[in-house]
Amino acid sequence: MTTASQAPKKRNALPPGVTPLDQVKHLSGLEFMRGMLEGRFSPPPIAAALKFELVEVEHGRAVFESVPEFGFYNPIGVVHGGYAATLLDSCMGCAVHTTLPAGQAYTTLEFKINFVRAMTDQTGRVRAEGRVIHPGNRAATAEGHIYDARGKLLAHGTTTCLVFPI
Amino acid sequence: MTTASQAPKKRNALPPGVTPLDQVKHLSGLEFMRGMLEGRFSPPPIAAALKFELVEVEHGRAVFESVPEFGFYNPIGVVHGGYAATLLDSCMGCAVHTTLPAGQAYTTLEFKINFVRAMTDQTGRVRAEGRVIHPGNRAATAEGHIYDARGKLLAHGTTTCLVFPI
Amino acid sequence: MTTASQAPKKRNALPPGVTPLDQVKHLSGLEFMRGMLEGRFSPPPIAAALKFELVEVEHGRAVFESVPEFGFYNPIGVVHGGYAATLLDSCMGCAVHTTLPAGQAYTTLEFKINFVRAMTDQTGRVRAEGRVIHPGNRAATAEGHIYDARGKLLAHGTTTCLVFPI
Amino acid sequence: MTTASQAPKKRNALPPGVTPLDQVKHLSGLEFMRGMLEGRFSPPPIAAALKFELVEVEHGRAVFESVPEFGFYNPIGVVHGGYAATLLDSCMGCAVHTTLPAGQAYTTLEFKINFVRAMTDQTGRVRAEGRVIHPGNRAATAEGHIYDARGKLLAHGTTTCLVFPI
Repeated sequence: MTTASQAPKKRNALPPGVTPLDQVKHLSGLEFMRGMLEGRFSPPPIAAALKFELVEVEHGRAVFESVPEFGFYNPIGVVHGGYAATLLDSCMGCAVHTTLPAGQAYTTLEFKINFVRAMTDQTGRVRAEGRVIHPGNRAATAEGHIYDARGKLLAHGTTTCLVFPI
Repeated sequence: MTTASQAPKKRNALPPGVTPLDQVKHLSGLEFMRGMLEGRFSPPPIAAALKFELVEVEHGRAVFESVPEFGFYNPIGVVHGGYAATLLDSCMGCAVHTTLPAGQAYTTLEFKINFVRAMTDQTGRVRAEGRVIHPGNRAATAEGHIYDARGKLLAHGTTTCLVFPI
Repeated sequence: MTTASQAPKKRNALPPGVTPLDQVKHLSGLEFMRGMLEGRFSPPPIAAALKFELVEVEHGRAVFESVPEFGFYNPIGVVHGGYAATLLDSCMGCAVHTTLPAGQAYTTLEFKINFVRAMTDQTGRVRAEGRVIHPGNRAATAEGHIYDARGKLLAHGTTTCLVFPI
Repeated sequence: MTTASQAPKKRNALPPGVTPLDQVKHLSGLEFMRGMLEGRFSPPPIAAALKFELVEVEHGRAVFESVPEFGFYNPIGVVHGGYAATLLDSCMGCAVHTTLPAGQAYTTLEFKINFVRAMTDQTGRVRAEGRVIHPGNRAATAEGHIYDARGKLLAHGTTTCLVFPI
């Protein structure tokens, strides 16, 4: 675990989009994720809608950062659980993705998340860290944790992904 | 189960916001949710960010609708799992909320969701139906299902909420 | 939902065991499960250890019954959660099994269960009903509910199974 | 993570049972768990039915060991998922229990487990390690992992417990 970075610079200057499959199918998952981190592939559209970005990626691990804001609130006055879910699904799915060789793809079968502290527009920058638990060749599992800038745990989860050839 | 409505009219014309607690603390959860459905209380900010709206509410049940779009895509070319998670968290949490008398509140401890069919910008209007399973006075559980306009199941989940006095 | 039967007769008189694969690989999942219900195939060993038995099976659905007893208690004075987990895993997994044609097998990737009322040695006969939610050809999901003899819900869960050719 | 111990000696020689509440209500959770480890309190009845035992306990952590056997098999020829569920529920719930002061109790609201490698009667001694993730005063979360004697991960899970005064 590390705390959220204080440097909110934008890593990827490309407009949001989905990279066509024929541009990425010869790449391993890690090569593709590194290309996104380094601004050679577009960040996904959802990252613009919920204002989060990839900040670290390595084999078996992916980290996203974001700043919760009022625009993500639910009716009961804190950030909606779907925001944490989106960050956790991203970091857990991408952690699995980094373990796949070229020619393999994945889809998320399920995830489960726990909320341990509410987020508000006073929380500041948060960090969602995903880590592969079991890198299987038919099914893989991963876990994710969201921390605030002081390292306090806000939410955590696990996921099950189906792995298949493309 | 019913299929998604074909009538995409906007139910609540108020700008997004969070209703102050002192305006709602004398209301039951169902009265508050009905006020939101009928446009007397603001829809939550997240509903603007991910473009979904409350369309039905009754004791133990809440339904939201939305149209998945390209702006919610993930890097692998379909709608991000966080979108389904947000709809399911909304309909399950609100279903629990409808069962609470005035003076009781809830917070979501955890949810778990399964993805059974991917959503794309061709899916059309979807419907997220939440239903209470166990309305406890310390902890409550609910389930949610997302269907497309033909009634095909796209995702489903369950949640555990903590119930407490305010 | 139906309540637990009052008739605790033993359905399958064979000793516990595992039927060799070459005796069952030409059968559909439902044919195999029916053979177990009708006493032509052994009940599984775990069913003896935790004293539960298959009582109904049809396409997409399997039901087990059992009587919780003191021998299944945890240190805090009620029946251990592993007992409900075993009944739910059984009824959910077998519900998936009933949907598989000959030549297909499944393995459980994950399950998640909620406990809504504790079981004790005064609970009496309980009934675990499993039902397929999504019968996929790569992954399938199912749900399960445990009821007491008056139809009160005691626990519920969902599962994700991997489906593959044998 | 550590591997399963090779020494299958019995730690607690008392017959299985449930310690009456008035003997333990003045103890912290950790004092109670240590009493069970040291043979001053009975092991729970379920530990006899499924042949597992507590082998380590400290603040925020509890470890159980067991040897999977044919008597725990399911109909498809491997150890039933309920066995892993029982070990994980035990180590995760007890890890939460160790964090509670005298006068506080807990109940498990839900758990979710993933199976990553099947267990058989050839697996040998396994070790289920529970660790608290979030020790809340209303709700607590924990995680658990089952390893074989060479340290290979077999199953993992998370749980949500309700914490309340007694």
